[in-house]
Amino acid sequence: MYMVYMSDEEILSASLETNFWTWSAQGKVNPIPVKRADGVYFWDVHGKRYLDFNSMVMCVNIGHGNQRVIEAIANQARELAFAGPGMATRPRAVLGKLLREIVPEGLTHFLYTLGGADANENAIKLARAFTGRSKILTRYRSYHGATHGALALTGDPRRVAWEPYVMPGVVHFLDPYRYRSTFHLNRPEVSEEQFSQDYLNHLEEIIQYEGPHTIAAVLLETVTGTNGVIIPPKGYLEGVRAICDRYGILLICDEVMSGFGRTGRWFAVDHWGVKPDLMTMAKGLTSGYAPLGAVAMRQEIYEFFMDREYVGGLTFNGHPISLAAAAAVIEVMKDEHIVEHAAEMGVVMKEMLEELVERHPSVGEVRSIGLFGVIELVKDRKTREPMAPFNGFSAEMNALRKYILEQGVFLYTHWHTILLLPPLIITPEQLREGFEVIDRALEITDRMVKTV
Amino acid sequence: MYMVYMSDEEILSASLETNFWTWSAQGKVNPIPVKRADGVYFWDVHGKRYLDFNSMVMCVNIGHGNQRVIEAIANQARELAFAGPGMATRPRAVLGKLLREIVPEGLTHFLYTLGGADANENAIKLARAFTGRSKILTRYRSYHGATHGALALTGDPRRVAWEPYVMPGVVHFLDPYRYRSTFHLNRPEVSEEQFSQDYLNHLEEIIQYEGPHTIAAVLLETVTGTNGVIIPPKGYLEGVRAICDRYGILLICDEVMSGFGRTGRWFAVDHWGVKPDLMTMAKGLTSGYAPLGAVAMRQEIYEFFMDREYVGGLTFNGHPISLAAAAAVIEVMKDEHIVEHAAEMGVVMKEMLEELVERHPSVGEVRSIGLFGVIELVKDRKTREPMAPFNGFSAEMNALRKYILEQGVFLYTHWHTILLLPPLIITPEQLREGFEVIDRALEITDRMVKTV
Repeated sequence: MYMVYMSDEEILSASLETNFWTWSAQGKVNPIPVKRADGVYFWDVHGKRYLDFNSMVMCVNIGHGNQRVIEAIANQARELAFAGPGMATRPRAVLGKLLREIVPEGLTHFLYTLGGADANENAIKLARAFTGRSKILTRYRSYHGATHGALALTGDPRRVAWEPYVMPGVVHFLDPYRYRSTFHLNRPEVSEEQFSQDYLNHLEEIIQYEGPHTIAAVLLETVTGTNGVIIPPKGYLEGVRAICDRYGILLICDEVMSGFGRTGRWFAVDHWGVKPDLMTMAKGLTSGYAPLGAVAMRQEIYEFFMDREYVGGLTFNGHPISLAAAAAVIEVMKDEHIVEHAAEMGVVMKEMLEELVERHPSVGEVRSIGLFGVIELVKDRKTREPMAPFNGFSAEMNALRKYILEQGVFLYTHWHTILLLPPLIITPEQLREGFEVIDRALEITDRMVKTV
Repeated sequence: MYMVYMSDEEILSASLETNFWTWSAQGKVNPIPVKRADGVYFWDVHGKRYLDFNSMVMCVNIGHGNQRVIEAIANQARELAFAGPGMATRPRAVLGKLLREIVPEGLTHFLYTLGGADANENAIKLARAFTGRSKILTRYRSYHGATHGALALTGDPRRVAWEPYVMPGVVHFLDPYRYRSTFHLNRPEVSEEQFSQDYLNHLEEIIQYEGPHTIAAVLLETVTGTNGVIIPPKGYLEGVRAICDRYGILLICDEVMSGFGRTGRWFAVDHWGVKPDLMTMAKGLTSGYAPLGAVAMRQEIYEFFMDREYVGGLTFNGHPISLAAAAAVIEVMKDEHIVEHAAEMGVVMKEMLEELVERHPSVGEVRSIGLFGVIELVKDRKTREPMAPFNGFSAEMNALRKYILEQGVFLYTHWHTILLLPPLIITPEQLREGFEVIDRALEITDRMVKTV
């Protein structure tokens, strides 16, 4: 294949020799040398099998090694491997048609990007230009990407690391995160509806303080991702939409992680029937088979730029191979009813999560929507003291993660939480296989629970 | 191929129906519906052939439709279509080995990105963290990408469109652009060496004004791209390196456009033997066959992050298909001696450019290095009044561009300039084919030249 020969055994050492690893201290990395991947599994060069409970990077929604997508990539490479972003191509034409059928009503045009970060960067450019306003409101418990604009949008500590050298003009507000809501601890009497209303009032308060006429957009992850799978409580998302409408503020939904069947619907917004003005996508859009992101927008936003130049774009935007991969992924999802399957498996996973609550005192709360789940680990269910500090590590979380990986389950832990985002094609048996490992692993954290 | 049928005839209308076009007013676009591409040509759905004098987006250095690269992509998709950025994979191992052989000495580790913009964004993060300093110096006549960090780095008006909402901490200085140097107009007696020294003194003056201890890096396009193919004059690049060394400032060379044979060497810095601390790449890295960028760095910078986490990275960083495409491109370039060929064709193109100076009064100056060339069109050779205003258009430039495209030559015009970046595999005959069209087109601008 290559002129440079590289045996399986050399893959790890040769990668370590020349690679700079993102999100890592270089001396502490322990990369898995991946040889092949199929369905919900991947294998390292030693033949060890991993059950992929994180869809690699929360993206391989249709599972690994899908032959139709692979052949679509190969065919597109042969037909037309590259054309510039200003060209019309077959996959551009096909993908637009397919996307329009699945995105929320009213989203008509698509700006293709390289991934989620630059999708969010373009979305706020569109919003600022369209509204003529400057500020963007996003939430503290959020992640929107690692470029300097997307970093500014990000609410979590990954932003703080690079401040003040991030894009100006972003204001962060609080999340409707019941389990750790400062204002609702020990107030179980507050109904879900009232809880939502409290956080809607908070948003409106911030809008007043900042000046409604200065705010271009509210941008939020429809269902929060790595910051804890925070699912909008009853009435919240509809309420945000209404507030935006009241003040002429655009609503941008970041569906990079929550889109493409992850929640058991095509997009998370579909659960609440909310129509964003702009919606960003990536990850599941190609199921990771090729780099691609997209911004979907309302007709009015497209039309605003009818005579005005949109100042933005990158060389590889709308890469034919990436567009072809996305088109094939959507066709596979439709053809194999993967979204419906994800909804069914979501019910199964929810039951398994509930079992963990019963069996393990270190499980503080579980939340899930479709195949998008989280386990919050605590040292004390009463105080909700997390198993690792905010933005930090703990010996027990490290031990838990290590055990799970050793047992051949690949998943993502974040601070004191375990995230669950398996490929959507997973079966109940495969879910059970992973949950049995997690069940045993939780004995590690159970030992740290303070006796009541 | 797809379940959605899309005939050749529908490609354009269907693309227009759903696509949002970057760098464009939506109502004024006129995309070419590209059907296939081979070598230095591509064809639209009506069978019209275009000679590609822009390598699509200054990136298809090895030419279109290269079978070895196409098969490398297909093979990688079959072997392992995706693995996360934290995984070791065969193409990651192979590409690192190949890159280390061709980059300037001392650059040992590679951070893979999605393209040039996020390569530059990561380079400045690395520089800021490594030096503990905040400011980045870049030049006015520069383009470094369209994300909010890369935009701030960009010196040209594409930045201005989004100010003040770009990353803070960037200071712009002046370019050693002899033809339009404010301080050297009508001073032909100033030698090239003295001219370089003047602009080195300028850089040092700005460093003093800004405070050397506050400056993390000087970032520059080794050879300026769309802002006019400004080639470092004698002693300039070595001088910048020396100044950086004097003040502990890192030198970042943006070789996104100038790299991978474009100038007749693997990288433009090779012409002057200058060793940057960080070097960014994209475009030619995969010849456009897949989205990819990279940051190459010195060992010391890699080692700085041995125990410190590098806070950055995107989901699709180090995508196996992109890495495999890059590895295949480098092997093709080595095997087919494409860099050497580019150097030879660069001599041929330089002669053709000189002919245009003799034949056309509207040609103010031509510059080129390898197959990286520019024609500056002026209304008056004496005053050097450009054929279109700075950051603007003119009827004659529009007419010229339209004529050239109609004649089947695809190239990029920028304000009052014509850029020339054909695929590096071009033959003298194919160069002549394109230059004959340009020769005829220049009659349009010649008519606008003010009589002396």
